[in-house]
Amino acid sequence: MTHYEALAPQEMEAELARLRAEYEAIKAQGLKLNMARGKPSAAQLDLSLPMMDLLTSQSDYHSEDGTDCRNYGVIDGIPEAKRMMADLLDDVPENVIVLGNASLTAMYDTLARCLTFGTGGFAPWSEEAQVKWLCPVPGYDRHFSVCEALGIEMIPVPMNSDGPDMDQVEALVAEDPTIKGIWCVPKYSNPNGVVYSDETVKRLASMACAAPDFRIIWDNAYAVHHLFDDPQEQGSLLDIAEACQEAGTPDRYFKFASTSKITFPGAGIAALASSPANIAETKKQLNAQIIGHDKINQLRHARFLKDGEGIAAHMRKHAALLRPKFALVQEKLHSGLDEAAIASWSDPQGGYFVSFDGLPGTATRTVALAKEAGVTMTGAGATWPYGNDPRDSNIRIAPTLPPLEELDHALDVFICCAKIAALESLLASLEQ
Amino acid sequence: MTHYEALAPQEMEAELARLRAEYEAIKAQGLKLNMARGKPSAAQLDLSLPMMDLLTSQSDYHSEDGTDCRNYGVIDGIPEAKRMMADLLDDVPENVIVLGNASLTAMYDTLARCLTFGTGGFAPWSEEAQVKWLCPVPGYDRHFSVCEALGIEMIPVPMNSDGPDMDQVEALVAEDPTIKGIWCVPKYSNPNGVVYSDETVKRLASMACAAPDFRIIWDNAYAVHHLFDDPQEQGSLLDIAEACQEAGTPDRYFKFASTSKITFPGAGIAALASSPANIAETKKQLNAQIIGHDKINQLRHARFLKDGEGIAAHMRKHAALLRPKFALVQEKLHSGLDEAAIASWSDPQGGYFVSFDGLPGTATRTVALAKEAGVTMTGAGATWPYGNDPRDSNIRIAPTLPPLEELDHALDVFICCAKIAALESLLASLEQ
Repeated sequence: MTHYEALAPQEMEAELARLRAEYEAIKAQGLKLNMARGKPSAAQLDLSLPMMDLLTSQSDYHSEDGTDCRNYGVIDGIPEAKRMMADLLDDVPENVIVLGNASLTAMYDTLARCLTFGTGGFAPWSEEAQVKWLCPVPGYDRHFSVCEALGIEMIPVPMNSDGPDMDQVEALVAEDPTIKGIWCVPKYSNPNGVVYSDETVKRLASMACAAPDFRIIWDNAYAVHHLFDDPQEQGSLLDIAEACQEAGTPDRYFKFASTSKITFPGAGIAALASSPANIAETKKQLNAQIIGHDKINQLRHARFLKDGEGIAAHMRKHAALLRPKFALVQEKLHSGLDEAAIASWSDPQGGYFVSFDGLPGTATRTVALAKEAGVTMTGAGATWPYGNDPRDSNIRIAPTLPPLEELDHALDVFICCAKIAALESLLASLEQ
Repeated sequence: MTHYEALAPQEMEAELARLRAEYEAIKAQGLKLNMARGKPSAAQLDLSLPMMDLLTSQSDYHSEDGTDCRNYGVIDGIPEAKRMMADLLDDVPENVIVLGNASLTAMYDTLARCLTFGTGGFAPWSEEAQVKWLCPVPGYDRHFSVCEALGIEMIPVPMNSDGPDMDQVEALVAEDPTIKGIWCVPKYSNPNGVVYSDETVKRLASMACAAPDFRIIWDNAYAVHHLFDDPQEQGSLLDIAEACQEAGTPDRYFKFASTSKITFPGAGIAALASSPANIAETKKQLNAQIIGHDKINQLRHARFLKDGEGIAAHMRKHAALLRPKFALVQEKLHSGLDEAAIASWSDPQGGYFVSFDGLPGTATRTVALAKEAGVTMTGAGATWPYGNDPRDSNIRIAPTLPPLEELDHALDVFICCAKIAALESLLASLEQ
């Protein structure tokens, strides 16, 4: 066996026939496997079950400042939850608002408020003929859905190994005042696992923006989601708040995090942190929308996770469950695809995904073949704005949900499909 | 003693001097009492504590359709929660979306979506030069805050004993296409405890609206919050969905309810119900904002309250705690104010408030006097849009939070303040 591209057409045909037979055998098994979404496994969820014993009918429901968490009130969160979420957000409690169950909602609402009310005393974005947004690609499909829903035009910019291509970003934001912001998943980015370098963070903070109300949405979803025990070795992330403060752009960012992949997705707590001016403005706006978020859940989480150290200890248990899965992905992809040389992929040190790049024009076909064989992947193109991957090559692999044996099986199917799609593409290009 | 208005000036002065001495004696006690907000008492919150034992580390977290409630997903709620909230909303589960912890947020978000996206296929409301909204008065201050925040111009319409003055409402909506909707608290309205008559509901459903996308925000916050055991005696509310269906305006309403004043305010679950078309549209819009609401809390509530009957049984326990407080309000107001004849007030059969009307021009002064004496009331004017009660006469009394003895004391203070304000006003008008 050698590189697929180096095969003679007849060899390609023979290999394809062999793979198609393998594929038909797989299909006959009637599999139902899922590598589509970044969901924790049941074993990971079990790690947080002890939290559910902390608030019973016998418990004290007062926060440390005496608030009865069972009643109305407290727009920004109880003190112990603010402090804990500040640890997660690498910030101080005064700059934190503890929110509802989802950072996605927090981000959507933040952009919606910028559109309706404006930010920093500037005019509502909705008064612009068009609002544009920078989207490092590949990126997170739900970020793109927020922009699409709110009518914000997305401009893809490439991701490098140290964050977004800052030469492009700087050139774009310097010229166009309708570019109002950028999505950033600065640590273990979705899907390619990139950690932004200090240099990237500093350039984001200090770059000259034509829009005076340019905002960085800093979705630090995987801040503590290391796959290995010693986070120091992976390099720590420079705090965007600190960088903006130093650059004289203190209001440029909104930071987001949640406990969704720490405790329970959908039943965790989310928070945002920003400058004192942005926090004051956001609190005022929130007052019309809500009396207070779920303080019982805040209390439950604060009593369970306690602080940054408590979170880190808990995340080491998650890492122990996730490491074998990410290791299996690497092992299977290498053994299955190295010789064929039809793909490359990321080897992340944290987060929830492996970013896979097949031959151009094969992602849609690969995902369709996998689906037909009972393995659901994230849709091809999902990692690009408007679902449009111009090379049709990127696929997001989400290995966290299935048990190890199922993941093993699903990867076999995926590899077979990627090879079939590659050979079909190579043969088609020979015919042209 | 006789009616204040019938007193001679010297008699008024003497009575005022007596009351001022009483007031100074009260002030010297350094009280700190609160009748400002519609918050359940600690004893009411205790009623729901058994709910907190239903989900522990040993529990099954699967909903009845097999969903693991600890993980992501389910935009509209787990089946048992949809069914229970449908009971509360007098609707069927298919027309229900279970949401987050607050119906206020649900209503704010609904209006925000109408502004940004439009509703029913019509243009976004934000494209209008001005959007207007009907506000029955006195009404709920947080409704008015939503409109004010979103830049919706509020038009007050009077409340009668059977709901909003429908002659005025019909005349206004027939002529002005920029009037896009109306706030309704159809049962035990906030603050005056009115239950809409069938006739009112039918007229709301069938009235000719110049705006084809006119929407009734049906905030049924007190649907099951009866003060007396037999709801039948109080007359049941005609369902707005049924009325709109019959009137051929099936998409005219959004219904809202929550368990805030059933279990825990801020830690309950909210829901909306609407027509199939509105629900489909809302779900699509929600998909960009959230992956799913807190299903663990949905499961907890569904297992605790179970269904409409379970809710009714639970609400009877609340009523037992609330009845003595509302009875005390009536008793004290009658004994303290009947002879002076300076005020009228509601005698609600459910809900959380008593609406009090003093002499014109006395509400602000009464509330200020009470505050100075250590009794916090809802701000005067709060029951009107923009905080502007043109007669300065309406005050919302919220008797639920304080224990009975504190309430007794607070009412004494309030009555003294209302009398002082009335006499000051009468004397001032004699001088003119």
